[in-house]
Amino acid sequence: MTTAPVRRLPQRSRLQRAEPPGDGRFAASARCLGNRSMSTPAFLEWFAERTGAHRFEVERIPFGEMDHWRLEHGTGNLRHDSGRFFSVEGLRVRTDLPGTPTWAQPIIHQPEHGLLGLLVREVDGHFQFLVQAKMEPGNAGLTQLSPTVQVTRSNYTGVHGGARAPYLEHFMGPGRGRVLVDVLQSEQGDSFHRKRNRNMVVEVRPDLPVLEDFCWLTLGQIAELLRRDNLVNMDTRTVLSCISFRTSAEDRRWAVSTAVDRFAAALADSFLGDDRALHTTPEILSWLTELRSLHEMHTELIPLAEVPRWRVTEDAVEHVDREYPSVVAVRVRAASREVAQWTQPLIHPHHEGLAAFLVQRVEGVPHVLMQAKAQPGLFDMFELAPTVQCVGRDYRRLALTEQPPFLDAVLTAPASRIRYSAVLSEEGGRFLRRENRYMVIEVPDDVELEIPPTHRFVTPGQLTRLVRQTAQVNVEARTLLACLQQLW
Amino acid sequence: MTTAPVRRLPQRSRLQRAEPPGDGRFAASARCLGNRSMSTPAFLEWFAERTGAHRFEVERIPFGEMDHWRLEHGTGNLRHDSGRFFSVEGLRVRTDLPGTPTWAQPIIHQPEHGLLGLLVREVDGHFQFLVQAKMEPGNAGLTQLSPTVQVTRSNYTGVHGGARAPYLEHFMGPGRGRVLVDVLQSEQGDSFHRKRNRNMVVEVRPDLPVLEDFCWLTLGQIAELLRRDNLVNMDTRTVLSCISFRTSAEDRRWAVSTAVDRFAAALADSFLGDDRALHTTPEILSWLTELRSLHEMHTELIPLAEVPRWRVTEDAVEHVDREYPSVVAVRVRAASREVAQWTQPLIHPHHEGLAAFLVQRVEGVPHVLMQAKAQPGLFDMFELAPTVQCVGRDYRRLALTEQPPFLDAVLTAPASRIRYSAVLSEEGGRFLRRENRYMVIEVPDDVELEIPPTHRFVTPGQLTRLVRQTAQVNVEARTLLACLQQLW
Repeated sequence: MTTAPVRRLPQRSRLQRAEPPGDGRFAASARCLGNRSMSTPAFLEWFAERTGAHRFEVERIPFGEMDHWRLEHGTGNLRHDSGRFFSVEGLRVRTDLPGTPTWAQPIIHQPEHGLLGLLVREVDGHFQFLVQAKMEPGNAGLTQLSPTVQVTRSNYTGVHGGARAPYLEHFMGPGRGRVLVDVLQSEQGDSFHRKRNRNMVVEVRPDLPVLEDFCWLTLGQIAELLRRDNLVNMDTRTVLSCISFRTSAEDRRWAVSTAVDRFAAALADSFLGDDRALHTTPEILSWLTELRSLHEMHTELIPLAEVPRWRVTEDAVEHVDREYPSVVAVRVRAASREVAQWTQPLIHPHHEGLAAFLVQRVEGVPHVLMQAKAQPGLFDMFELAPTVQCVGRDYRRLALTEQPPFLDAVLTAPASRIRYSAVLSEEGGRFLRRENRYMVIEVPDDVELEIPPTHRFVTPGQLTRLVRQTAQVNVEARTLLACLQQLW
Repeated sequence: MTTAPVRRLPQRSRLQRAEPPGDGRFAASARCLGNRSMSTPAFLEWFAERTGAHRFEVERIPFGEMDHWRLEHGTGNLRHDSGRFFSVEGLRVRTDLPGTPTWAQPIIHQPEHGLLGLLVREVDGHFQFLVQAKMEPGNAGLTQLSPTVQVTRSNYTGVHGGARAPYLEHFMGPGRGRVLVDVLQSEQGDSFHRKRNRNMVVEVRPDLPVLEDFCWLTLGQIAELLRRDNLVNMDTRTVLSCISFRTSAEDRRWAVSTAVDRFAAALADSFLGDDRALHTTPEILSWLTELRSLHEMHTELIPLAEVPRWRVTEDAVEHVDREYPSVVAVRVRAASREVAQWTQPLIHPHHEGLAAFLVQRVEGVPHVLMQAKAQPGLFDMFELAPTVQCVGRDYRRLALTEQPPFLDAVLTAPASRIRYSAVLSEEGGRFLRRENRYMVIEVPDDVELEIPPTHRFVTPGQLTRLVRQTAQVNVEARTLLACLQQLW
């Protein structure tokens, strides 16, 4: 096996370029946007302007001050009077996996699929995505970059009446555009009970009118923005991870030829195919199938009041040691929504989480060290997760025996090996300031890693193909995959 | 789009040929088999001899005569004293799909994955599969052709001790062979609660010792045997449907060049790729994703005793009108098993079912008209099903308004258009004489079918790729797909 020769040319890939084609000099005003796109500096100006245009205020309140939400008598479950939206209940878990054999915990129960959709257009051979500056009460900074639509099933099927989200018609019904991606993906397996969202990418005609709070960005621009803390929201990241139409050999060769170093070049190259992967894709799927077959994780919804070691206070359902996220209530005052104010529960972690990919070249081909991780809320028990995923408890305070493999390698990686690092927010409609540090760490070729049976090397190209199947790659890994795909 | 020119040569594909390479003239004795294979006539002689070598007797008995199985007091659920094997319970279903919005029914509850595995070897460039003459109490004829192993999870994990099935070590653990297929597939969605089995194909060294009751067959031989009623069992058929390593362009071109007519040639050709498919594979997956997102089918296990319109008699749990399958008990007396006799419950339908593919060439490319069918026991609600699937109730007695689309087209097809027709048994370890007539009907090019939103044209090549993903193609469609793959 040999590594393909790497050409170094000054220009960037047409899909990687940061500036949009055509006139990049836009007034940073939504009114002026028409159907055109913006330069990245203009975008940032516009984004700040949109954020400022709507005043939002989010404050924690006692449960007793919530409108239409209540801790149900008897069960203690947190529900909306209408039975809509979601509820917070208890989950009892029993498993034969190593570690704790049985436990109970709060869980978000929302038995329906939301829709996360990105519209894409092609202008002069370049793809542009219609993104939205959108407030979610739990987001750091409140407003982040969202996909074109991000709605619950009730909203998109219109069962409860009410205003439909803008652009929804392009994802639904006979007149919709060309569907490029349409796949159900999991959400956080530690917090949601079997929840999946529909991730869609639909191509539309280039002259689609652009509404206030929306704008077109190239993949290169989104890649730049992914480098910033708490700007590109989780829903955008998961939909981006499903995009494989960018992995044509021609586009990738461009990326390879323009990458700044051998590692980056090899990483970009690896999206071209899995011919030189350490394990075939059927072998990777077989590994997951075997784990799903050999192990059991039995889950059962129980009343929230019956979850041991959790207590209900005036303004939180919390773990007695506050080790795990609490359930809290907030009031949101907003001008940009049809409802001027509302209250809702959110899940509030006490610590920043960590999710990291270790990437190493095997015979010259970059591989990501993936973990097969079981989580109680996942649709099919095991999914591929980042090399290190510490998102429930404080990873800085774990006892030595509790530390997951490779945590130390991530925490002690020298700056020169840290290829990506940013703090990103998880779903701001369900979590209050759930933030994870996402990292990509390069492991030198000559370091011999001891690979436990929970981990296996997978190429980025294989991951990109696996993510097109429903619920094989977990949400934290999809964020990191989106970064890998877009940054190289 | 044009149709590829069809060459007509007298020879058959190397994978299609009915005779194995080497000496096909074998004494039909297990003792003589060594590690070699047999001609098909020799196989049939051997199979009859193996069937005769073990005397089996299966008789219906009252529930009261069962050993270790009982109708549990209170719930009425049918369970084994040990808690092992499976239970028959009730299932309450609530759905927004057209038709009955809510009902309850008996269901088989077996919350673990069985393993259905075929060993394959390559001899002189030909694949051969290790099959087994195996008795299952519910099979027509009792003994049928099974895959190499067909075991429950308890057996293959060895949790309960006891003898492990022969050849199991080739599917498990570090010393196993090369894994070609390893995917979880659904069972009958009308009868099993979220049951999936692991379907595996593993390549082993050619000189593996062949035990009594086992023999090597080529795909061509299995194809011939698929033409016979009640010979190739369901587990063999579902594993066969997952085989795509036979679809290399070279092999397929052989098949195309040797096919006997234009329809068969085009069908064989269609496994080569989906470039000329009416819908792209992402579009087909999007269709399934949309149905799974837009519709709800809520299911809940309930006590069997609480299922309305079902009554418990001395020897059956049956629907008051006997329209749906009954739960019955049998005693099996067998010489070839470690246990000399046992009793167990089986699900016994009152009618033969029907499952048919309509196949039509669209722009010269054969397409199968697939149905997206929701069933309460399926893991993900909707799977791709045959054009017509009438397996629960008697399709000959349905009222006009109850008849599914295309039933009439199947039942009135002229003999010249019936490309395949055979009666095959479903899982004989759970069903007593559950038999379906499987048919492939050719629709002439100039017939304009009115396609309802429940149906869509898919190429056989697309189906072959979809079946490699977990739980996208239902068990009846997999049987028909195996026939399509092997017969053309």
